[in-house]
Amino acid sequence: MSTSVNRQFVLASRPEGEPSPANFRLVEQPLPEVGDGQVLVRHHYLSLDPYMRGRMSEGKSYADPQPLDQVMIGGTVGEVVASKNDHFKVGDHVVGMGGWQEYLLVGADQRGVLQKVDTTHVPLSAYLGAVGMPGVTAWYGLVKVIAPKAGETVVVSAASGAVGGVVGQLAKVRGARAVGIAGGADKCRYVVEELGFDGCIDYKQHADARSLAKALREHCPDGIDGYFENVGGMVLDAVMLRANAFSRIAMCGMIAGYNGQPIPMAAPQLILVNRMRIEGFIVSEHMQVWPEALKELGTLVAQGKLKYRESIAQGLESAPEAFIGLLKGRNFGKQLVKLV
Amino acid sequence: MSTSVNRQFVLASRPEGEPSPANFRLVEQPLPEVGDGQVLVRHHYLSLDPYMRGRMSEGKSYADPQPLDQVMIGGTVGEVVASKNDHFKVGDHVVGMGGWQEYLLVGADQRGVLQKVDTTHVPLSAYLGAVGMPGVTAWYGLVKVIAPKAGETVVVSAASGAVGGVVGQLAKVRGARAVGIAGGADKCRYVVEELGFDGCIDYKQHADARSLAKALREHCPDGIDGYFENVGGMVLDAVMLRANAFSRIAMCGMIAGYNGQPIPMAAPQLILVNRMRIEGFIVSEHMQVWPEALKELGTLVAQGKLKYRESIAQGLESAPEAFIGLLKGRNFGKQLVKLV
Repeated sequence: MSTSVNRQFVLASRPEGEPSPANFRLVEQPLPEVGDGQVLVRHHYLSLDPYMRGRMSEGKSYADPQPLDQVMIGGTVGEVVASKNDHFKVGDHVVGMGGWQEYLLVGADQRGVLQKVDTTHVPLSAYLGAVGMPGVTAWYGLVKVIAPKAGETVVVSAASGAVGGVVGQLAKVRGARAVGIAGGADKCRYVVEELGFDGCIDYKQHADARSLAKALREHCPDGIDGYFENVGGMVLDAVMLRANAFSRIAMCGMIAGYNGQPIPMAAPQLILVNRMRIEGFIVSEHMQVWPEALKELGTLVAQGKLKYRESIAQGLESAPEAFIGLLKGRNFGKQLVKLV
Repeated sequence: MSTSVNRQFVLASRPEGEPSPANFRLVEQPLPEVGDGQVLVRHHYLSLDPYMRGRMSEGKSYADPQPLDQVMIGGTVGEVVASKNDHFKVGDHVVGMGGWQEYLLVGADQRGVLQKVDTTHVPLSAYLGAVGMPGVTAWYGLVKVIAPKAGETVVVSAASGAVGGVVGQLAKVRGARAVGIAGGADKCRYVVEELGFDGCIDYKQHADARSLAKALREHCPDGIDGYFENVGGMVLDAVMLRANAFSRIAMCGMIAGYNGQPIPMAAPQLILVNRMRIEGFIVSEHMQVWPEALKELGTLVAQGKLKYRESIAQGLESAPEAFIGLLKGRNFGKQLVKLV
């Protein structure tokens, strides 16, 4: 890896259905000179997240699509390697939206795109996970939408993932019962034994919503008061069959529908029957909660009370395959790409 | 009609699919003697409402099912014809849940089941409609769930009905734009010309959600900010295709699903894409808002600013057919049965 070159992935084409490696193109740019007021960051980790799938398409979404032939969007953490800006010095650790590339040059008037972070008690990579966007996403959906009372039952799909794992642990901190849904025995064991959930259901053992609903009944004998939705489809249908009166669903993601196929909700009349509230949210639209959320998340991580796992792919060139694997649930915990 | 007899409809059997007249049985009881502390009410009007369909089935619902061989549940207004209770005198007008029968005997310890109402400025029957449960239902969904800002667009299904008509007029009072959806040109004309909605779409002119969504685009050029849901199915799907970011759906009824057939929501991922909030509610669980709601509704009716229409079936014996017609949308405005 030459330090005079910045390697980048740009979006080469828009996927029809599932993304493939051909949708991405690796390009090389000469490493830019650092001018007055500018900062050069070497990325240590790139975050891969399901929302990127939405950006790859042109359809209606909450954000503009990722432009073709531009560096793919993505959260990054790194280290300042050159600075002609008084606010940053070489060696500073920073988090930003640097994209799928090894270096980021930040202009003199763009100081706000980099946030300095303290790695004394919190590992740098955690600022892309439990103490970053996924953690705040979990915090917002659990605290602001579900708002569980002690003794209530909260169900989380994609429970071993970067968001889901935090949701359940935050629910436990609040005295609620946490039940996960994840794919495979390994993930379920991790969710219960390492993350401390009260139970976890392997959805791969269930062919349909009815079967999954039966498993939910066993794990949630008092019904479901809150559900943090990451996947959609059959899992959502099953949860709704066990939802209590006045239950709340925080709708954060629907991986099942990212590739454009229809994923109907089987029985929306249950929203009425159970007087449910369903709320979709995008954490970046709720910046006012970030300080409070990050404070709790950072404290819990520093105290060892908030656990997480990372799936680390090595080298920028591994990003497309790692991203495709993430959409298929092949990751185990927060999916990162290590760039150094 | 003898005054020594109280005619009643009891639930004879539970419907499979659509209810039929055979599900109801007309019975006669001798008119009871009025004992100490008791009140005898002669019903003037019985209210027929979609919720009754839910009570006829044994499936999971928010309320206990209507017991077999008992008088069908229902809201009533009437006049006190005999009283041995200091709180009521002969001639008082009262509203209550008297059920599908001509008379109601209220016990000494049940005083709370009857509410005296003032018919000086508000007609007695309105206490079953615009100034009763349907009106408060409209008020709660519009004011507490949708909470439209001036200039926003609110869409209402079953717009010519007892609830829908009030929703749109309350939205207009708040400076919002109101667009109705109703079945047939007559109802649509009424919604626009008499109730003052900004537009109304005849859903019968549209074979699928896509076609209806196109009509919604014409009537709602700035998209949809709030939707008051009375029907479900294709109408809900079409509205979701035109929903704005941060739009709210008050889910009050799903007539399309009352007979047990599946009515999936086609694209629940739009809840996330549009960061929507969907909330099911039952107005009887929000008694704290009734005084405020009834005050506004009663004032608007008395001032002639809140309009409504009634479909009046004559005589208790007409109740089953009128109820079945209501479920099929054959009524035009609030469905009542006149019992005197």
